[in-house]
Amino acid sequence: MTVSPRTDKIKLGAFIHPTGNHVAAWLHPDAQIDAGTNFEHYVEVAQTAERGLFDLMFIADAITVRDGDVNALKRWPQYMAFFDPMILFSGIAARTKHIGLVATSTTSYNEPYNIARRYASLDHVSGGRAGWNVVTSANASEAWNFGREEHYELNERYDRAVEFVQVVKGLWDSWEDDAFLRDRESALYFDPAKLHTLNHKGRHFSVKGPLNVARPPQGHPVLAHAAASDVGKDVAARTAEVMFSHVPELEQAMAFYADMKARVAKAGRAPDSIKIMPGLNAIVGRTRREAQEKHQFLQDSIHPDVGRELLSNALGGMDLSPYPDDQPFPDDVAERMMSHKNPRYFHMFRDRLTPREMYQHYAGARGQRTVIGTAEDIADQMELWFQSRAVDGFLVQPAVLPTGLEEFVDLVVPVLQERGLFRTEYEGRTLRENLGVERPVNRYAHEAMEKTAGAPV
Amino acid sequence: MTVSPRTDKIKLGAFIHPTGNHVAAWLHPDAQIDAGTNFEHYVEVAQTAERGLFDLMFIADAITVRDGDVNALKRWPQYMAFFDPMILFSGIAARTKHIGLVATSTTSYNEPYNIARRYASLDHVSGGRAGWNVVTSANASEAWNFGREEHYELNERYDRAVEFVQVVKGLWDSWEDDAFLRDRESALYFDPAKLHTLNHKGRHFSVKGPLNVARPPQGHPVLAHAAASDVGKDVAARTAEVMFSHVPELEQAMAFYADMKARVAKAGRAPDSIKIMPGLNAIVGRTRREAQEKHQFLQDSIHPDVGRELLSNALGGMDLSPYPDDQPFPDDVAERMMSHKNPRYFHMFRDRLTPREMYQHYAGARGQRTVIGTAEDIADQMELWFQSRAVDGFLVQPAVLPTGLEEFVDLVVPVLQERGLFRTEYEGRTLRENLGVERPVNRYAHEAMEKTAGAPV
Repeated sequence: MTVSPRTDKIKLGAFIHPTGNHVAAWLHPDAQIDAGTNFEHYVEVAQTAERGLFDLMFIADAITVRDGDVNALKRWPQYMAFFDPMILFSGIAARTKHIGLVATSTTSYNEPYNIARRYASLDHVSGGRAGWNVVTSANASEAWNFGREEHYELNERYDRAVEFVQVVKGLWDSWEDDAFLRDRESALYFDPAKLHTLNHKGRHFSVKGPLNVARPPQGHPVLAHAAASDVGKDVAARTAEVMFSHVPELEQAMAFYADMKARVAKAGRAPDSIKIMPGLNAIVGRTRREAQEKHQFLQDSIHPDVGRELLSNALGGMDLSPYPDDQPFPDDVAERMMSHKNPRYFHMFRDRLTPREMYQHYAGARGQRTVIGTAEDIADQMELWFQSRAVDGFLVQPAVLPTGLEEFVDLVVPVLQERGLFRTEYEGRTLRENLGVERPVNRYAHEAMEKTAGAPV
Repeated sequence: MTVSPRTDKIKLGAFIHPTGNHVAAWLHPDAQIDAGTNFEHYVEVAQTAERGLFDLMFIADAITVRDGDVNALKRWPQYMAFFDPMILFSGIAARTKHIGLVATSTTSYNEPYNIARRYASLDHVSGGRAGWNVVTSANASEAWNFGREEHYELNERYDRAVEFVQVVKGLWDSWEDDAFLRDRESALYFDPAKLHTLNHKGRHFSVKGPLNVARPPQGHPVLAHAAASDVGKDVAARTAEVMFSHVPELEQAMAFYADMKARVAKAGRAPDSIKIMPGLNAIVGRTRREAQEKHQFLQDSIHPDVGRELLSNALGGMDLSPYPDDQPFPDDVAERMMSHKNPRYFHMFRDRLTPREMYQHYAGARGQRTVIGTAEDIADQMELWFQSRAVDGFLVQPAVLPTGLEEFVDLVVPVLQERGLFRTEYEGRTLRENLGVERPVNRYAHEAMEKTAGAPV
């Protein structure tokens, strides 16, 4: 590489699925089997991530149970019964001190006032550790829980999301940071000149404000996106501070990284004001063999009903019933699938994988990057990607919880620290301070300063 | 009294306003002055209530800042900047073990799926201590934050609320209590026969379900209401388990109690399946004089801008600007106000109170019951009301926090315990068990049992 080594540090997030990220995780004897209803399990996981000096923990979300064939659903607990992420994180906030808490909330089936308020409240309760992963809902099964027959189509969804985020950010600025005087002498609790009414009237929302929560400790909770489309990347370039988009190959990731940083610059922001942290499925062993065995155990535990459902979803809902698990697809089917030009389809059909090989390929990481090996192997890969400017950090997705995260913290983190690639203590008090992204100035305070600066002397 | 002494115990709730219930609370040197943004303050208050073996703590809510004259707003922090109650309670749940957590959520500007999910999640996080105070929104300022020009009118509001609660209860039954098998041998995580899809289609909501949270530990979180109207009381009689309606006079309270218990019986429920717990503003001193001085300090601290705003609100928005603080209203005004027949207006104008006297009357408790005295005085009043079957318990509203609650716990609770009127340890693990209200059977489990019972042998 011709680029100079980076002086900043790798950012780390822990992506938490209740029993672990692998579809067969719950079948592993190390998995906390009742994780979905066990608050103390999540607290333990959060405290482990905090012991490992992780920047943040992250939880995905959908406002529905997973939709699909009941034969698969009943054998795969992910996204069937879990907790509202913000309720969960507020509980975790009360039992941790440093780790950032990035929850997912959809702009499709919420109201901006409620979301602004909840994230502001979580930011206060956690002392400045809240983050919001902004998503739009594309599941019909979510729509059905909210009085709709169909989910919003893409443009409508994005348009609503952009306006939604704009309203939420406006509401977070309702109170200036120094609005509260709390002066008993003059009986003044706040300065009314520092309370601002948003009066937003837009295409999707009409929201007067002000917000009934004091400005969050971070100014605004950290905004995360996981965009992949061009529209999504442009939206992220304007507003996101963390990006979780999944990019499985190094070259692709370098291109994505360069593209995103350029878009961010074009949007008038400093390129390092956004941290790119794709998923990393790390399976760590004390030896390579131990790591491989761990992985193989999980792969072998995938029930065919689950594997086939997963594969069918990955192949756009393809009916797999005519095709046995252990025979390659017939030539005509393979050729038809290869003609779709989707790289995920292409390789698998070109290489004539069987359905079982295909679903095993997807099972652990649903098409995302998996690294299996010793702590040094994993640190090598992380270093390569980081130094290649393919990433600013990683969203570590332990295959099995709680043990997968413990192993990462106990084995991989020290190696990263020895190499000077990862912090040895938290840099700041808030998620923003640890991530190294600026605290936004209140729009009204800014206006006031500009007015002062521009006023005739 | 001719009735026999009760053998059950008084139920106690703590109604928490950040700095205390009195409008001038924050001006008292004992008040936690930054309470509205201080999570640790709430934890301390919750732990004090738990030390006092309270059944529950309760927080009111509105999805807006208080509306009114800025000269009053700036001197009276209540409902200006506070936390989302559920975010707050989840944090508190993680730092307490026994106390019930009853939050307020409106059915007017939320979606039933989201509310069902959040209360179910809080019930899990707290190990069965969640309660939902069901309210409808009647503030225009809330409507303005949710794209509406006007709030819903009364019948529409209630109609929506009744259907909303029906949907939420249905969603809480999505999973039967024993739906989760978690059997690694057979690779079965749950029994699909015990997962139920609601398929609700009503006038206001269309919600398919099922809920993506396992059945709450309490079956359903406890439902609280604070109805006063006939419609509201009938709704409460069908669904509420706790009632917080405010009734300031003993006779009125006895009538309300008898009326509600009759309505509950008429709705086919056991009369003791609803606990009537009106507000009680208890100001405790080691001597009566100390208690009176405490109260007087607060009354004297009411800023006229605040007092007049409060009084104007109590008088239906009356313009008070022509009337000085310390002169009774002119005869024609007094007569006009008395003609409204509203008992709160009537007495004050008949007795020719000045505006200051009137607003002081409202300030501490906004028309609710205030008892000032020693622990014995307060226990006497509580015993009288309890034994008169006017109440099942009280929602204690400390004038100043955290000290007002500490005084109640340290001074009044031991007197109630000595008299055998209050528990000396928690009876159960969940809020329901402590309150003594039944855990609802899952509607589907019930159906299954009935089917079995009715099936030909």
